[in-house]
Parts: sequence; C-alpha cells; structure tokens
Amino acid sequence: MEKQKIQVEVCFTPAIYAGYENPEAIVVVVDVLRATSAICTAFMNGANRIIPVATLEEARAFKEKGYLVAAERDGIVKDFADFGNSPYNFTPERVKNNDIVYSTTNGTNSIQIARNSHEVLIGAYLNISALAYYLIEKQRDVIILCAGWKTKFNLEDSLFAGALANKILANSAFSTICDSAKASVDLWQLAENNLMAYIKETAQYSRLRKNNLHDVIEYCHTPDQTNIIPVFRDDAVTVLN
Amino acid sequence: MEKQKIQVEVCFTPAIYAGYENPEAIVVVVDVLRATSAICTAFMNGANRIIPVATLEEARAFKEKGYLVAAERDGIVKDFADFGNSPYNFTPERVKNNDIVYSTTNGTNSIQIARNSHEVLIGAYLNISALAYYLIEKQRDVIILCAGWKTKFNLEDSLFAGALANKILANSAFSTICDSAKASVDLWQLAENNLMAYIKETAQYSRLRKNNLHDVIEYCHTPDQTNIIPVFRDDAVTVLN
Repeated sequence: MEKQKIQVEVCFTPAIYAGYENPEAIVVVVDVLRATSAICTAFMNGANRIIPVATLEEARAFKEKGYLVAAERDGIVKDFADFGNSPYNFTPERVKNNDIVYSTTNGTNSIQIARNSHEVLIGAYLNISALAYYLIEKQRDVIILCAGWKTKFNLEDSLFAGALANKILANSAFSTICDSAKASVDLWQLAENNLMAYIKETAQYSRLRKNNLHDVIEYCHTPDQTNIIPVFRDDAVTVLN
Repeated sequence: MEKQKIQVEVCFTPAIYAGYENPEAIVVVVDVLRATSAICTAFMNGANRIIPVATLEEARAFKEKGYLVAAERDGIVKDFADFGNSPYNFTPERVKNNDIVYSTTNGTNSIQIARNSHEVLIGAYLNISALAYYLIEKQRDVIILCAGWKTKFNLEDSLFAGALANKILANSAFSTICDSAKASVDLWQLAENNLMAYIKETAQYSRLRKNNLHDVIEYCHTPDQTNIIPVFRDDAVTVLN
C-alpha cells in the first residue's frame, strides 16, 4: 500500500479557515500586499518582536502604554499610530531592537486565528525559499492561509500560495487533494513569467495606487531577500531559531 | 467620463456570500456536481416545481406529507428519500408534472442564502448559453455563487463560473474588478480544451468515484442541452418564462 503523503492545503480567506483547521499542521500566513512583507522587512531590519493585534482599540491601548504602533485600515494610517503598513516604514532607525504593535485590515486577524495549529509562520516572497526549505525539512502537513481582502479571495495571496505550494510539492513526500492548492499552483504557473503585469490586474493594485501606496508592490514580489522566518508564539511574532 | 460598467463577480463558497450580497444583482447558483445539473435535468424532463430545503428534517417532514423527495448527504441517499442527487434519477417517469423536494450537502443551502438578490437563477453547463444570453439581455450586475464543498472552494464550480463569466464579459457592457472572477476565467481558459482530464484531478471526482457515482460527470459537463432557466421564487424553483 502506498504510504499516505503529507498534505499541502491552501485556504483562500480566514473566513473559511475553520474548515481547514488541523492542530498537527504548520500554518503559513500570507498577506503579500503588505502585512507579511512588512513583518519580514521589520525583522530584516532588526526588530525584536511584533505584536499583532486584531482591533484598533487594542492598538491604541498599546500606544498609550508607550509602544511603537503601526496601524492602518483600508490603506489609511490611523491618527494615533506612529506609521502605517508599508514595508518601507519599517526602517532600521525605527525598528532595530524595538517591539512593534501591528494592526491591519486583513493580516493580523489571520495570524491570530491560526494559533491552535502546530506552528504559525509568516510567509512572503521575501523569505519564500527559506520557508519552503524549512517546511520540507519538518515533514508535516502545511496549510497556506491567505489573508485575502475582508473575507474575500484575492489574487496576490493566492498566487503566492501557488508559488510556495509548487516548491513544497516538488518534494515527493508531499501531495495535495485540495482543490484550492491545485488552483493556486495553476494560477502561479500561468502568472510567474509575467508576474507584475498579472498583479496590475488585481483589486489590491488599484486600491494601493488610489492611495499612492503602490511604490512597494514590486519589492513585495521580490523573492529571497532573507532567510529569516518569523514565527507567532505567545501572542507575539519573533524570529524562528 | 467612461460609463460605469456592469459588474460580474464570482463568490467561491456560500460561507463568504455576505461579502458579495447585492440586492440589485442577479445571482446564478452553481453546483455542477450535481445539484444544479440535476435541477436542470428535472425541468428538461417535465418537473413542475422543485422545493429546495436546507435540512434533512424538513425533507423528512415533506416526505410524510406525501411529497416525492430527493435527499443525500456526502453522496449517500437518505433512507427516507425516494432517490438521490444524480441527474440520472430525475427521469420523466418520476418527475413529469410532479413537485420534488430536494436537499443536498451544498447546493440547496446556496439557493436559499441568495434569496435577497434581484433574482436567483440555477446554472449548469446544460443551460450555460441560454443563461449567458439572458444575463446579457438583462444588463444587471451578476454574482455567480459557487456551492463549493462544505464552506470550501471547489474546482468544478469555479471552472463553470469562469466559463459563464467569460461569455458575459465578451459583451462590452460588462466588466469585472473581482479577483475571483479573474481567477475563474483564467482557470477556465487553462482547462477548457481538456476539461474532463482537469475534472479528474478534483476532490469531488474522487468522492463520486469512491461511491460509484461518477457515471454522471461527463453529462454534467455537456453544454447547451436546454434553453430552460430554472428560477427560485417564493420558496420553490420553477421555469423562467
């Protein structure tokens, strides 16, 4: 009898995560534009910890306690926050050795809801090969959780899910019976040779452009700028050792 | 200024329908394998009305009142039911001039939740061109609601959504800013020239095959067998006049 292969699944939005939940799986949370790209960048620039909070009330309470706070909704920086979600905001001058409280429209909620899995990792193109290497080494079921846009599917996270699933599935110990994983891999293979043109068709590109925040899109789609893998443990994101 | 175009959106699962809801839109519910294909077939064979019910308790209560009942869960016919979900069960001998109560794992719930839209239509490959023609003629926003599998995305409904969206978007009055619609159209264009091979990779193909119910898959992917468009009104599905 064929040995049961390790499963790779893709969940297109946190709104349907309950159907995928698996305490034995490693969950990779992805919000390419821009939360998980910003978190990777913060650690590349020496941040100590990132504390993801779901609500603006929590973010404001941390600010009152003296924390550095990054908080946006729908691409607009909140007035009480120190800065917003752009990875370009997480400069070494601001973040080195600091703890940062972080709240976004979609990304932070996705990190929180995955907490009952074996491990919660933060994924982006910036660390995609390091992630794939780690996941293959661990030989555990993988769920790639796309932050999406307010309960909806989005293309940029799904394409990333396809890119990562494709790398993992190249290892013969892994397989998938998940329709979303198959769709993601197919979409990735369709888009990969002309990724920026494809991303320009997404709803998020239009949203960021409207707010003049689209300068960061190409950076967020640049692979392998770091081997750092951020991990969510005990209510905070730190660097996996 | 460019005239605002009529929008085509795709919702991958009823679990996230709330984010798409639009009282002005026409909703097309699709559960290709097999509920909406079975409903089209029932009307092709002369059924009078189909009463979709979400729960098995409701289905059983209708049976006790003397109704003909089709009811399954996970591909298994319920013991109190007259027959299950396969379109092949809806023969002229059984359905002609009859009312049929219908309950399935995914399809009937999707029909029910769309009731607050302008109109709820039943879509399948069997009536795809008639549907596209009607939708283009009506010049209203369209939401294609995929039944999915128990809150999850599925490939077979998403491919159908892409096929239908592609036909509608060929009319210059329509456009889409919906990432799911774009992904569906791309997946459809990838699969359409070898559709049955693609469908064999889906989770639902494996499920139906396991229960020896896969004889109907090719029939459910045969376009344009009818011009009938079933419509959900006043708690029942009838034929649109």
